[in-house]
Amino acid sequence: MINVGIVGYGNLGKGVQIAISKTKDMNLVGIFTRRNPNDLVPVISAPVYSVEKLNDFTESIDVLLLCGGSATDLPQNTAKYLERFNTVDSFDTHAKIPQYFDSLDAVAKNHGKLCAISIGWDPGLFSIMRQLFGAVLPDGNDYTFWGKGVSQGHSDAIRRINGVKNAIQYTIPKEGALNSVRKGENPILSTGDKHLRECYVALEDGADKEWVENQIKTMPNYFADYQTIVNFVSEQEVLRMQQKLSHGGLVIRSGKTSNENADVIEFSLKLDSNPEFTGSVLVAYARAVSRLAKEGKVGALTVFDIPLKYLSPLSNDTLRATLL
Amino acid sequence: MINVGIVGYGNLGKGVQIAISKTKDMNLVGIFTRRNPNDLVPVISAPVYSVEKLNDFTESIDVLLLCGGSATDLPQNTAKYLERFNTVDSFDTHAKIPQYFDSLDAVAKNHGKLCAISIGWDPGLFSIMRQLFGAVLPDGNDYTFWGKGVSQGHSDAIRRINGVKNAIQYTIPKEGALNSVRKGENPILSTGDKHLRECYVALEDGADKEWVENQIKTMPNYFADYQTIVNFVSEQEVLRMQQKLSHGGLVIRSGKTSNENADVIEFSLKLDSNPEFTGSVLVAYARAVSRLAKEGKVGALTVFDIPLKYLSPLSNDTLRATLL
Repeated sequence: MINVGIVGYGNLGKGVQIAISKTKDMNLVGIFTRRNPNDLVPVISAPVYSVEKLNDFTESIDVLLLCGGSATDLPQNTAKYLERFNTVDSFDTHAKIPQYFDSLDAVAKNHGKLCAISIGWDPGLFSIMRQLFGAVLPDGNDYTFWGKGVSQGHSDAIRRINGVKNAIQYTIPKEGALNSVRKGENPILSTGDKHLRECYVALEDGADKEWVENQIKTMPNYFADYQTIVNFVSEQEVLRMQQKLSHGGLVIRSGKTSNENADVIEFSLKLDSNPEFTGSVLVAYARAVSRLAKEGKVGALTVFDIPLKYLSPLSNDTLRATLL
Repeated sequence: MINVGIVGYGNLGKGVQIAISKTKDMNLVGIFTRRNPNDLVPVISAPVYSVEKLNDFTESIDVLLLCGGSATDLPQNTAKYLERFNTVDSFDTHAKIPQYFDSLDAVAKNHGKLCAISIGWDPGLFSIMRQLFGAVLPDGNDYTFWGKGVSQGHSDAIRRINGVKNAIQYTIPKEGALNSVRKGENPILSTGDKHLRECYVALEDGADKEWVENQIKTMPNYFADYQTIVNFVSEQEVLRMQQKLSHGGLVIRSGKTSNENADVIEFSLKLDSNPEFTGSVLVAYARAVSRLAKEGKVGALTVFDIPLKYLSPLSNDTLRATLL
């Protein structure tokens, strides 16, 4: 059995716990929280401890699954955990990944530990696809589409506008762009050309619809460069939509093997629950980290470094006999 | 530079040569043939040698790309080449892969060589997807669809019928089955439920259309269990169709992360030229074999064993900075 711990218990932590419960080779030693452990009721019964108690578990936990956010929690705390534990995280600030990798690689090597960083679906499975597709079809172009799914950053930006009570924003791939890419037309597309942004907004009493709509549609960086649709709905409607955490997206590579012959490679995800699926990917990589650590591997790893067989609970013989 | 050789120069060997010509880090030392080398005119100018001369190149070739067939050539000859060279092959007789792997693993280890077996898109990329999807979404079902593309075995079977001058058969995924899988309905589907078989047949003068059509549609194993469409066309038409080597297919996994939440993961290929794309995949894995061999790795490997970074000519730093 692989003994694991969960650090942080938001939506991702819950998703990780559910994914662990579906494995036969993993044992959840505990959930570690910065809140008062007595106030945390897990979705599945499990021991809950203060994160301060982690040091009592250095011998009994093989891998810690870090379920904090990428803005501050992971950059501040991963190195600290990594001094005593092997870790897996979902650090997703793309621009800061090289620096995050280098600093954790040094810490891990100094302390004889192993970590897998930036695990999930983007970065994660989408990164695998971009890298694999580019290697097998070098003369071509990559396209990544996101959605349909909620963008928390864009939803937050709308909620900061005066007169907005609550709001949710969906990023949606544009059909026209998607079809052009799938046809192998190799269009040049900005993020704005590839996606539209659909907003559902509940207003405060007496707020000015037209003014709010204009504030959204002209907001630089967030909406100004996009086709943006604004729908005004009741607060109940927004709250109902906020219950659903569905997401998805596509990675498509279109290219040529010769002047005469073109190919299209496509990978897509349709997820009812973004945090549950991301949690399930983290759990598969926790299995890999545990196995690689037992083989003596130390340092930081990404999805590019880990042979896929390590993600599976099946033996290498079984993989070859049944899936090759 | 990685120095490579091609053994066998049918459609796959040509595809491999074209793929090598698109790399910047590979040098084609020579094409090795069992034919008279003087009779072989490569699609791109390159040295051609008799396969008997291979032993002169043990020091100058890093990896041999074996482009023979899986029925007899690879089972008979791969072990012999592997005694002196690192190799990559596209062995695709699924049922015999475990035995093929075990015997080559022993040869490779005895001779300090490395081989990657069963490389291409199925087995190959499709195997990667089946394994990865199962690991990240364990509670679910896999579906592999092939086509639209030519089945050589089924085309041959039609050509053996009395009165048939020439024929070609396309395997085509059934839209209804595909849509049901994509909707997450988790249907139970036989290969016949997933595919239809469309045949284009040119008859000999005086042959009986109805009798031939009935012979095809009732042929056990090949057609009897499938929805089969038979079109009678001119011999020119069949010859024209035989020029196109397009193929493709899909791997879809549909499953649940919890009782409430379902996911669909999909990978698809649309290929104008099956041998050129397969060749391009072989070349990426030849790069991996060369690099892993230089690190001292010996034995047999499959797509499950090789970290994806080894397929790319880009540095690990660049991969993390640009594709993660």
